[in-house]
Amino acid sequence: MIEEPAAKTRTLEQFDAELAASGLKGFWRIDTRTSEPRTAVQPYVWRWPTLRRHLEQARELIHVDRSAERRALQLINSGLSPRSATTHSFVTAVQLIKPGDVAPTHRHTPTAIRFIVEGHGAYTTVEGEQLIMDEGDLILTPNWTWHDHGNESDGEVIWLDGLDVPLVLALDAYFFEPYHQERQPVVYPPNDSTRRYGAQLRPFGHRQTPVFSPQRAYRWRDTYATLAHLAALGEADRYDDVAVEYLNPSTGGHALPTLGCVMQLLRPGSRTRAHRHTSSAVYQVFRGQGYSVLSGQRLSWARGDVFALPPWAWHEHANASSSEEAILFSINDVPAMEALALYRDQEYPEHDGHQPEDAMG
Amino acid sequence: MIEEPAAKTRTLEQFDAELAASGLKGFWRIDTRTSEPRTAVQPYVWRWPTLRRHLEQARELIHVDRSAERRALQLINSGLSPRSATTHSFVTAVQLIKPGDVAPTHRHTPTAIRFIVEGHGAYTTVEGEQLIMDEGDLILTPNWTWHDHGNESDGEVIWLDGLDVPLVLALDAYFFEPYHQERQPVVYPPNDSTRRYGAQLRPFGHRQTPVFSPQRAYRWRDTYATLAHLAALGEADRYDDVAVEYLNPSTGGHALPTLGCVMQLLRPGSRTRAHRHTSSAVYQVFRGQGYSVLSGQRLSWARGDVFALPPWAWHEHANASSSEEAILFSINDVPAMEALALYRDQEYPEHDGHQPEDAMG
Amino acid sequence: MIEEPAAKTRTLEQFDAELAASGLKGFWRIDTRTSEPRTAVQPYVWRWPTLRRHLEQARELIHVDRSAERRALQLINSGLSPRSATTHSFVTAVQLIKPGDVAPTHRHTPTAIRFIVEGHGAYTTVEGEQLIMDEGDLILTPNWTWHDHGNESDGEVIWLDGLDVPLVLALDAYFFEPYHQERQPVVYPPNDSTRRYGAQLRPFGHRQTPVFSPQRAYRWRDTYATLAHLAALGEADRYDDVAVEYLNPSTGGHALPTLGCVMQLLRPGSRTRAHRHTSSAVYQVFRGQGYSVLSGQRLSWARGDVFALPPWAWHEHANASSSEEAILFSINDVPAMEALALYRDQEYPEHDGHQPEDAMG
Amino acid sequence: MIEEPAAKTRTLEQFDAELAASGLKGFWRIDTRTSEPRTAVQPYVWRWPTLRRHLEQARELIHVDRSAERRALQLINSGLSPRSATTHSFVTAVQLIKPGDVAPTHRHTPTAIRFIVEGHGAYTTVEGEQLIMDEGDLILTPNWTWHDHGNESDGEVIWLDGLDVPLVLALDAYFFEPYHQERQPVVYPPNDSTRRYGAQLRPFGHRQTPVFSPQRAYRWRDTYATLAHLAALGEADRYDDVAVEYLNPSTGGHALPTLGCVMQLLRPGSRTRAHRHTSSAVYQVFRGQGYSVLSGQRLSWARGDVFALPPWAWHEHANASSSEEAILFSINDVPAMEALALYRDQEYPEHDGHQPEDAMG
Repeated sequence: MIEEPAAKTRTLEQFDAELAASGLKGFWRIDTRTSEPRTAVQPYVWRWPTLRRHLEQARELIHVDRSAERRALQLINSGLSPRSATTHSFVTAVQLIKPGDVAPTHRHTPTAIRFIVEGHGAYTTVEGEQLIMDEGDLILTPNWTWHDHGNESDGEVIWLDGLDVPLVLALDAYFFEPYHQERQPVVYPPNDSTRRYGAQLRPFGHRQTPVFSPQRAYRWRDTYATLAHLAALGEADRYDDVAVEYLNPSTGGHALPTLGCVMQLLRPGSRTRAHRHTSSAVYQVFRGQGYSVLSGQRLSWARGDVFALPPWAWHEHANASSSEEAILFSINDVPAMEALALYRDQEYPEHDGHQPEDAMG
Repeated sequence: MIEEPAAKTRTLEQFDAELAASGLKGFWRIDTRTSEPRTAVQPYVWRWPTLRRHLEQARELIHVDRSAERRALQLINSGLSPRSATTHSFVTAVQLIKPGDVAPTHRHTPTAIRFIVEGHGAYTTVEGEQLIMDEGDLILTPNWTWHDHGNESDGEVIWLDGLDVPLVLALDAYFFEPYHQERQPVVYPPNDSTRRYGAQLRPFGHRQTPVFSPQRAYRWRDTYATLAHLAALGEADRYDDVAVEYLNPSTGGHALPTLGCVMQLLRPGSRTRAHRHTSSAVYQVFRGQGYSVLSGQRLSWARGDVFALPPWAWHEHANASSSEEAILFSINDVPAMEALALYRDQEYPEHDGHQPEDAMG
Repeated sequence: MIEEPAAKTRTLEQFDAELAASGLKGFWRIDTRTSEPRTAVQPYVWRWPTLRRHLEQARELIHVDRSAERRALQLINSGLSPRSATTHSFVTAVQLIKPGDVAPTHRHTPTAIRFIVEGHGAYTTVEGEQLIMDEGDLILTPNWTWHDHGNESDGEVIWLDGLDVPLVLALDAYFFEPYHQERQPVVYPPNDSTRRYGAQLRPFGHRQTPVFSPQRAYRWRDTYATLAHLAALGEADRYDDVAVEYLNPSTGGHALPTLGCVMQLLRPGSRTRAHRHTSSAVYQVFRGQGYSVLSGQRLSWARGDVFALPPWAWHEHANASSSEEAILFSINDVPAMEALALYRDQEYPEHDGHQPEDAMG
Repeated sequence: MIEEPAAKTRTLEQFDAELAASGLKGFWRIDTRTSEPRTAVQPYVWRWPTLRRHLEQARELIHVDRSAERRALQLINSGLSPRSATTHSFVTAVQLIKPGDVAPTHRHTPTAIRFIVEGHGAYTTVEGEQLIMDEGDLILTPNWTWHDHGNESDGEVIWLDGLDVPLVLALDAYFFEPYHQERQPVVYPPNDSTRRYGAQLRPFGHRQTPVFSPQRAYRWRDTYATLAHLAALGEADRYDDVAVEYLNPSTGGHALPTLGCVMQLLRPGSRTRAHRHTSSAVYQVFRGQGYSVLSGQRLSWARGDVFALPPWAWHEHANASSSEEAILFSINDVPAMEALALYRDQEYPEHDGHQPEDAMG
């Protein structure tokens, strides 16, 4: 089939044309060489000073109201252009909310998470529950829940958004609806769901197993206490050092069915081994400084920086300090990949698990 | 078959005898009238002053060591004699541990729980994790885990034990093994599992779903905060007022596969409606005073009292105070009954859900 | 505590008496030696010629109607007297139904299975579905389902019943109700559930996951085809040779939550290795002849014989023929033991997995 | 923000440019009107005479070997160009295999199904199991299983392929590997898995719960018997008449985690009500003739025709014959949509559930 006489080639070309006219395409001239995932996602780092400076500009230029519902900067992975996405399956943004802001209420089928980078006292209201934000907290906004943001405190708050919009769009399942008022009524006391579900208890006799965590906020104080406990015990993973995932207390599974959230403590001086997996991730540096080697490129990072890990890209992390902890928050698409039986991973097989590298950051 | 001629009766009697000689028994003269569960379990209340006085006597008489591994008083339901059991499926006891005591290490297939009634500072060590006790805490000792108790503080601690020994014996599955030393080594820091699992987090990428909760202790402070939150919201159950069950954070299911544990707040002045279920329960009054109506008998109760609820017995509860909360801790066999598809319940259908009653307590 | 001075002994005796008067019992003089399950269940074999002869007598003596609802002979394990039980958790019986019999309709919380030993053409109706019996079939009667038996054919049918009555009684959960008529209406075509669920299909969009299998009958033809297929491939288990369990097609789990059913083909000349488990079992020889070694006793068996395996008893099986298959049907309590986390097993560690034995059968 | 003075507009344009240079994009000028999924998938019908004629041409032109591994015609949805896809999440093709063909062995992360449209006697070998094809059968090729096709019979076979390639590509998870030989060794007897799992049995004591069905073939004879049984009972769904889904016998869940397969019998004269759902589907007419109304367009269909249903498109079906059954096989992405919590559906609310329509087919 590969080296055909000219007559046959002509015949096949004619056949191809006939097929195309019938909405068909021959499936025989196919690439049958061994192949691994190719991705348009680029490894990339967004620097905090830049992000912060642009947020400050946006604070002056953008008035949040019905005509501009959010004051957020999406982190655009250039490889995915013209899609607005940070990896192929989700988009992240940094968002600033200042005293007095009211970001109007809406709901959509994409699921969102918020990770609070700086400040405290602003809120997100999700389905009638007002969740007060504090640095290091994680807040969930499941698929199709009404939500709005506001700030009745006297300080600014900056957070990282993560939304599975690219995944939802790829599946043609994007629904959006504005609320008929700017703010939804608050029907529960502040932080209700954490107080309800945070202690491994459940109303007796009323088991429910929602796929979205009914607990909507996870507090930094608790998260850090757990990380510090595990770090003190030396319970480290070879690829992620000390890392924990946020869970759905009703099932013990992932907090959300599409997005996973991880908080990771790299102990002073630690350096992990490289591996890769079919899931992608976006990391935000919450504490400390260090570097990661992504696809052989070293990206150094410091407090506030955000970087994108493409799927099936080798990666390893290092804390550059021998005395201070480094802490990375990250979002990934592990739950989706597992649910579809597409999650695979592999350890870097050479050089004691470390990639040869070219400096980049 | 019921009124047979004498000849036939003689024939049948002879046949019965022949069958018996062959290890057989005719199955035809059977009671086919509608019937509901009959139980030997009696509703009963053990008064705290009595329990406490006997514990004090035991404190003087019993020296805890290899020859007397525990200083505990089993609560014996007279209807179950000669079995040592509080209900047909589990046994409860009150146990006192004084400064310096070491209750030796062993393990067994019965699963145990401890609910701390008074005092603080003693410990249970379970599989290398030392769990420090405080009033109102719940501690789990799953099936076949090494455990010992001790008290290095300067005060006494009293707790309620619950063990599914009768169930395990009924299933011919009782294994027991002493440890080769009095105390097992402590290999984790104090309260490790609560610090590890108490914040809805899990080591990233390492999902396990054990049927026994990996969290071994549930703190009163957290339990009460949740109850108070739900009570403030008025989220009450018609039969149990404000009641929460302890969960396994790895699965969102019952903390243990055979025994269930519940903490229940009866709001000031509250009175619940009657129902019954195939599960049995033992309650300990942790705060306040009130009464319960069990099978039409009123049992008044106060702090520390323990009472037994037979299976399929109507019951309802009331807080006698119009200003103070009443709080009941209870153990039940709901997880076992559900697992075997034998759980059934029914609301009391008359008199607005309240039983006519005879005073008893 | 063990060798006490007389004064102390008197004091303790007095204390014991005081405790008993208060519904209490000291828990300190306890046996803390290593122990394994003790059971009252005896290994025992009921011979088919005896069973059959007694069934024939019963056929003449017992007229099945509202006064004698069933014509069944329970297999009584003498060790469990005065309980009517074959093992500690379930009872088995052989039952004969002759042309024209109508065994009236009732329901109860014990779950039943029927294994058809001889004949064909009788029926059991379960919740409106008439299940026609044929030799080697298994029929399920889940907890609380209306059921009656009858025979509109012209031949006798004999089956083996298994019911978890002892377990349900131990849990105080026995409910019984007669139907208001002798026969319930038949609302589905014969063998409806097998035709509905037997092909790994389900009505699109209507998933349900009942804990009791919605398929009520499993046909010998299918069971044998599967066994023969696996036997031809040599896919044998070291303890059971070629053995399959009946499943719930809605969940892939056990067909029933309390009782397990197994069909087992011992290939010509095969001899399995010994093991033991906390589950008990009752076997009926469906084809062939051979022997089993139970707790060191050899029990030879032939077509129709029934034998009981106590929990935690060593056992191994052998087909005595070098040319014919031997086939054993068995009932066990594995699902209950697993659900309660009490299932344990162990391989016989010596003599290449074979027990030294005393002849018995 | 909407009507800005020119100066502000210029400022914002400049800001946008600065953001773009930093890999950022302002998220404020967003469409916040209510919206529902938009899809590029077009409703379309491929006619069987056309498909068959082109397959016959391909039979003459294409020699199946290492240079042309398959003789298949992909059904291209023009709305998705330049992607080769039938809906946004999967691709279908018709494939012809003639006597003597050997389609070489490979594996890939896309999951495939084959539905046999015509003929019998060809085979697919999946992981060492040779599955013999017969008209109406469904054969599964899970993610990453070695598979090859061949035909040692003397007749041609035509089947419909379905693969989740677009989904796997959207998730950047495409792996492909050729086998080192043309054919993989056959290590099981023909149709092993159906014989092993087809009777609701499992090797005793060896539970496994793979997310891909271990049964690899579902036979038309069994499928039709189930449909006919349900049809005779009138157990019809309002949207699909009598429809069954293929299951994974190990779990009772979908046979595959990404693709669902359904066989649907439209009884003579039946006409279903319209609904829509976020899942897409491709139907092949296996028996009979009728029409479907998709997004208000009537598509008539007959034996062998294939048609595509876009996500969130209203649709209803009718059997045009008052005496003959019509039978539709279909593939959908329901399992993926459910796993990601993106499945939603809606009944057509007007005109008794029927769309006003324009004739198309």
